Amino acid sequence: MGSSIAWKQLLLNALESNTHLKHSSYMQLATIGTNGKPSNRTVVFRGFQDNTDNILVNTDTRTRKIEELKICSSAEICWYFTDSWEQFRINGHVDIIDATNPDPLKLQQREKSWFAGSVRSRAQYLWPNPGLPCLNEQSRTEILLDPSIGPVDAFCLLILEPDEVDYLNLKSNQRLTFRSSLNAEAKKNWIVERVNP
Amino acid sequence: MGSSIAWKQLLLNALESNTHLKHSSYMQLATIGTNGKPSNRTVVFRGFQDNTDNILVNTDTRTRKIEELKICSSAEICWYFTDSWEQFRINGHVDIIDATNPDPLKLQQREKSWFAGSVRSRAQYLWPNPGLPCLNEQSRTEILLDPSIGPVDAFCLLILEPDEVDYLNLKSNQRLTFRSSLNAEAKKNWIVERVNP
Repeated sequence: MGSSIAWKQLLLNALESNTHLKHSSYMQLATIGTNGKPSNRTVVFRGFQDNTDNILVNTDTRTRKIEELKICSSAEICWYFTDSWEQFRINGHVDIIDATNPDPLKLQQREKSWFAGSVRSRAQYLWPNPGLPCLNEQSRTEILLDPSIGPVDAFCLLILEPDEVDYLNLKSNQRLTFRSSLNAEAKKNWIVERVNP
Repeated sequence: MGSSIAWKQLLLNALESNTHLKHSSYMQLATIGTNGKPSNRTVVFRGFQDNTDNILVNTDTRTRKIEELKICSSAEICWYFTDSWEQFRINGHVDIIDATNPDPLKLQQREKSWFAGSVRSRAQYLWPNPGLPCLNEQSRTEILLDPSIGPVDAFCLLILEPDEVDYLNLKSNQRLTFRSSLNAEAKKNWIVERVNP
């Protein structure tokens, strides 16, 4: 099958047809917990990295997923579109771009993602340590952030590079599996197969 | 905090307030793949096992998750309610009840779950092997199942027994962690803690 049914195009189509739903950019990211058990949470799709299939997600360096991804970088996104009844299972590995990253291009990408978010969402990275016992109720809404300030330490960009994508359409009952491999020039190549739903 | 904010009650409330949405019973189940990588897919909530906190899910014995759960029974459900902005992360272990189960009570539960599904949904368990290459297009819609016939071999009931539940409310920005332990009489006891969102 040709590139016309590449999974990225299917995903862009699904986003387009579900765009009226706020939650259409919400997807579930599964990782391996530090105890070896599965770990699963909702994250927000922040677009693709320029000219790639790589998926961008913003997160807080203080969340459990960072600790988990440092030990095992493998992850699987499950993304269900409630209006078009399409599911994407996107398996790959995650690159963690925090303030300590030595690559200037990656730090630039992190800064870009920071400024792409609303000022209000940026202030969340100054909230108390996520997941730790809640000591007091106030302070959260009081934080005001200078809109010109660059990414704070807790801000972290995740870049998921997909290796395998399983696409399921529950309206047509069609299912496609996309697998990537590297060709002789170390360029990524996708192979698609129709499988039973 | 008392039993009035037990996670099961929060979940029942969320189901109640999102009941007008067909997809409110859809949740994402993460497991450990046989290759050690995370695996994540949408499944449908089929209710609680009588008088317990245990979550019921119907599935096909021929799907990859069965193979995975046989090796590692740990799983985490991530369940996001799109209308009330609530997320439940439910970690536990999964009991697989297929036709070969030696426990008559469990087989009874499996039969009950089978007949609770529509005749149309039951016919799916006679479809070609899920995930295998699709050889032909027809046959699927042609299958008619006698409504009085009991569970077919491919029908499998999963029972997830929760150990830990993380509840997040994005409207109130409240987050609660529920952890279970066994007391002296081997009875399950839940402890709740308010944590930072």
